Amino acid sequence: MKFYDCQTAPSPRRARIIIAEKGLEIETVEIDLGKAEQLSEAFKRINPRCTVPVLELDDGLLLTENAAIAAYLEALVPDPPLLGTTPAEKGLIAGWNARMEFEGLWPVADALRNRSKGMVGRAITGPTNYDQIPELAERGRSRGIEFFDMLNTRLGEAEYVAGDSFSVADISAFVVTDFASWVKLGMTDAHTNTKRWYDLLIQRPSIAG
Amino acid sequence: MKFYDCQTAPSPRRARIIIAEKGLEIETVEIDLGKAEQLSEAFKRINPRCTVPVLELDDGLLLTENAAIAAYLEALVPDPPLLGTTPAEKGLIAGWNARMEFEGLWPVADALRNRSKGMVGRAITGPTNYDQIPELAERGRSRGIEFFDMLNTRLGEAEYVAGDSFSVADISAFVVTDFASWVKLGMTDAHTNTKRWYDLLIQRPSIAG
Repeated sequence: MKFYDCQTAPSPRRARIIIAEKGLEIETVEIDLGKAEQLSEAFKRINPRCTVPVLELDDGLLLTENAAIAAYLEALVPDPPLLGTTPAEKGLIAGWNARMEFEGLWPVADALRNRSKGMVGRAITGPTNYDQIPELAERGRSRGIEFFDMLNTRLGEAEYVAGDSFSVADISAFVVTDFASWVKLGMTDAHTNTKRWYDLLIQRPSIAG
Repeated sequence: MKFYDCQTAPSPRRARIIIAEKGLEIETVEIDLGKAEQLSEAFKRINPRCTVPVLELDDGLLLTENAAIAAYLEALVPDPPLLGTTPAEKGLIAGWNARMEFEGLWPVADALRNRSKGMVGRAITGPTNYDQIPELAERGRSRGIEFFDMLNTRLGEAEYVAGDSFSVADISAFVVTDFASWVKLGMTDAHTNTKRWYDLLIQRPSIAG
């Protein structure tokens, strides 16, 4: 296998943590998003969507989405389970992970990509250029504030995002918590439940490493 | 089990098709989104996120996201598989399904919710009111056009969205294809591959029914 990564970007970080949790060591190719290498003709042949992460399998199959990489690696290496084992666990983890994306990751990305000077004309990932919408950056900020309050409430009810066990929903939540600091959002001093959970997570070798 | 549905809405339609594919008959409660019943105090006790679908399990557990319902039902009733059986199939289906959401469903929803007169102040699903952003409706339209061209290209390469078998990625793609007609987007006469696939899908009892 071969893993196309970018060490500084939040999206491939999600896959990188899964790879480490599964105890895999995979040859890594660094794609420099700072130099727009994801838009190069060479990388477009690997992923026409121009995004990382990408996992290239030994038979040449290309998995170009975080959801794809998570589902593939969970089936290939079931332990430790990150997507649940019982039907109810699988349901809860998939549901919480979807919320981490829809309420957390996408709004924070909206807040960044619709305002950052480095992303003028690049408000959406992918090969097509989309103009920034400043009002959407503001909406993303408002939704981000709501999200981190919700996350703190949730982490007052359960040890991990989806319940008793560490899962892919924690990985998504952790990555958006760090990513949000790019736009001065994220965990505040009032979010004591999130702090308890964050301090637990950073002890994991997959995250600390 | 109990299924909270809205017959006219695209989001619960995804879960409804999965339930039918799995051959399940589940008691259904209709939530009238036209009358904003999802925002009622009674429904907020079932889903504080104020969205359908919701699947209530016999032990009271509530699954409030399409991703949760799909993962739960797939584990409970493995046949017919909708999320794949081999690791590679699971990866491809999860990846294509994520693209149907991110490139199709969310942009079409942006196009509708940020322009519709019936959704003033309701640009995002959920308990919080967000103002419409007309520029985002336009962006959603542009991304929707791009999406349906991509889908047609993809369906020229493969029989179903994720490969040789019908999967949850087809369900998401089918629902967004119909939903897009609300904003005059979707399949055009030029999309002959999509038409071939659409005509195949509407023969399935889960969809025709």
